[in-house]
Amino acid sequence: MTTLQDCRALDAQDPLRALRELFTLPEDVIYLDGNSLGPLPRSVPDRIARAVREEWGEGLIRSWNSAGWFELPRRLGDKIATLIGARSGEVVATDSTSINLYKVLSAALSIAASGEGQRRIVISERSNFPTDNYIAEALCRERGFTLHLLEADEIPGALDARTAVLMLTHVNYRTGAMHDMRELTRLAHAAGALAVWDLAHSAGAVEVDLHGADADFAVGCGYKYLNGGPGAPAFVWVHPRHTDRFWQPLAGWWGHASPFAFTHDYQPAQGITRYMCGTQPILSMTALECGIDTVLAAQPAGGMPALRHKSLALTDLFIALVEERCAGHGLGLATPREHARRGSQVCLTRETGAYAIVQALIARGVIGDFRAGRPDILRFGFTPLYLRFEDVWHAVEHLRQVLETREWERPEFQRQQAVT
Amino acid sequence: MTTLQDCRALDAQDPLRALRELFTLPEDVIYLDGNSLGPLPRSVPDRIARAVREEWGEGLIRSWNSAGWFELPRRLGDKIATLIGARSGEVVATDSTSINLYKVLSAALSIAASGEGQRRIVISERSNFPTDNYIAEALCRERGFTLHLLEADEIPGALDARTAVLMLTHVNYRTGAMHDMRELTRLAHAAGALAVWDLAHSAGAVEVDLHGADADFAVGCGYKYLNGGPGAPAFVWVHPRHTDRFWQPLAGWWGHASPFAFTHDYQPAQGITRYMCGTQPILSMTALECGIDTVLAAQPAGGMPALRHKSLALTDLFIALVEERCAGHGLGLATPREHARRGSQVCLTRETGAYAIVQALIARGVIGDFRAGRPDILRFGFTPLYLRFEDVWHAVEHLRQVLETREWERPEFQRQQAVT
Repeated sequence: MTTLQDCRALDAQDPLRALRELFTLPEDVIYLDGNSLGPLPRSVPDRIARAVREEWGEGLIRSWNSAGWFELPRRLGDKIATLIGARSGEVVATDSTSINLYKVLSAALSIAASGEGQRRIVISERSNFPTDNYIAEALCRERGFTLHLLEADEIPGALDARTAVLMLTHVNYRTGAMHDMRELTRLAHAAGALAVWDLAHSAGAVEVDLHGADADFAVGCGYKYLNGGPGAPAFVWVHPRHTDRFWQPLAGWWGHASPFAFTHDYQPAQGITRYMCGTQPILSMTALECGIDTVLAAQPAGGMPALRHKSLALTDLFIALVEERCAGHGLGLATPREHARRGSQVCLTRETGAYAIVQALIARGVIGDFRAGRPDILRFGFTPLYLRFEDVWHAVEHLRQVLETREWERPEFQRQQAVT
Repeated sequence: MTTLQDCRALDAQDPLRALRELFTLPEDVIYLDGNSLGPLPRSVPDRIARAVREEWGEGLIRSWNSAGWFELPRRLGDKIATLIGARSGEVVATDSTSINLYKVLSAALSIAASGEGQRRIVISERSNFPTDNYIAEALCRERGFTLHLLEADEIPGALDARTAVLMLTHVNYRTGAMHDMRELTRLAHAAGALAVWDLAHSAGAVEVDLHGADADFAVGCGYKYLNGGPGAPAFVWVHPRHTDRFWQPLAGWWGHASPFAFTHDYQPAQGITRYMCGTQPILSMTALECGIDTVLAAQPAGGMPALRHKSLALTDLFIALVEERCAGHGLGLATPREHARRGSQVCLTRETGAYAIVQALIARGVIGDFRAGRPDILRFGFTPLYLRFEDVWHAVEHLRQVLETREWERPEFQRQQAVT
């Protein structure tokens, strides 16, 4: 049996343990929801106060140049690029994940429509994050394509000469299952299709190599593992072989070749800049940079490989402790045990009571979240930047107590309401 | 001749003079660029610090409910509605102006395409803010429509049975000229077309009555006269007769009827909620609320009519002082003298040197901006919330000195680079 002492020993030898100091975490909280909203980097309050008082308050309009506001989308994009196997100048931080997906999927459909043959099908996963499938559904409807939603294991066999685009979220938001990006991209390309990847639960969480996988398009989220703050801007990457081929539909002035020439006609910028549209929320963008910097701070201790190594150790430990200490309480495991197929979260299933158990845990300061479905899911995210092995032990101990004392059956935990 | 004493007398009797205290303005600055970026409301630093430390840092994911983050787009929308003649529940604050324009123009084209006849032309103004025309150009290209860019005086005669949409910015960004929204909407409707209005330079600056004008769609900007901070989210309004007729194309989860049901199929929400797409930048949204509140703070002193009254008095004074004190220096007036045709800015023209004159003024702390064109424009925005009549006197005095001493001919002011 694993003991608390064992967990503390793991913390003592953890090369990333100092990074926890980069965050402000409430004392009474074990935060297992960084996959929904990363916690507050310690650098943010002062940095935001400076952006507000000095850059906005004193610099006023001059700060677009003097404080580098214009450059934020590209500067942050370059930093994100290092975490996802993209190159400098290939990524911009901008808009929301949904909007960026619309841009790249639209470009992908334009490429497909310009090619030979009748490629009119977009393939995605039924349990993909809903907004991705909604965006695809509406765009397919508008452009005369059809969206096919399949189970993960049906996808390889479904890629054929009718497939225009394979659009997948790399790590599933409900189960934590991770697709093999390289293999699925290879299969998509072999069928003549393009591959669009949503890295919402990947960037900063698992190793991603977009060029290594030869992916075509990618988008991702700033407020999860990148710790950019609530609703932080998202990001978008396009392989250089595609950037200049088509306009993306949201042809706003920030994507213009010369935005301040104020010309009448739209002339898209070269490269990823054309995937920008309008003015960006600078305060949220400033916080996002602090968040990205917390991930980059792992570089001296090994960077993404080291983060991934600890992430797997944390999720392995959580699975083992749940199976050792919470057996007989009806919990199942929705997340793959195989490392290559697991993201940075663990999802447990339970026929009944999942919502109430999550609420009882939150009341004890163990913050995970609930996702309705068949079966219902108790979802726990593990961020190696600030989580200790000891935290995992205590989280499971709380779960054990909630189950053994039937604390979750209390009326106050019963209301069915999903939380993001 | 108007004297500084006269200006001070106007300030003494100004019923809005106390509102200046709502802002933090640098001591050595006369800020005539609130039409590009409004200044810092005094409430923002504490409010943002609380959003960062308490809502994000302590509340973490729980703040989506406990801090009301979910409700921000609608709550701010309801506040904005009171400034533009819309009703509660009809406006959301979200995304950027360019993206919101894409949503409403796309819906308008869908409505046009669903009607009888061959309405395939979108009419706008050649000197409309470029991003509006870029968005329209790309969307028209995609959807088989044609964008016709006309001079303002050509528009009424061009509206006919082929016109799908009249898309205009209410107050022109270059000249400060204001369209007659009610009359042009009437003419568009008489021709069977829809009217889309961009209120970027109107909301919080001039009286707008969307229902009174019977407009169809409107978008606007949060960071200009609403003082929402750099890149603050924009807003979108749709007349209730149109909201539920079509999907807007950016069909993200925040526009879904039940976003947290995580259903596979997109079911748009009723009403303006369906014009939302993805997660919003909460820090920037929080600052925007402070900004909107500065405009609402004028309510006890007369609200938008009082603000408009003072705005016209400020711009009248500026025009008069320039003509009295800067005569013979080659300045022209691009902004209409007629009140009904003037927004809240004054634009001067000069054959040469406009850029350098603006730079020389900025070096003296009089911040306006430059817009290239034929002729070049010196642009000055007048925000009645914080500008004093005395400020107008001093601004013109600086302009007079810059011209009379030929200070603007100094090499350091000559570099041609546009500033937003």
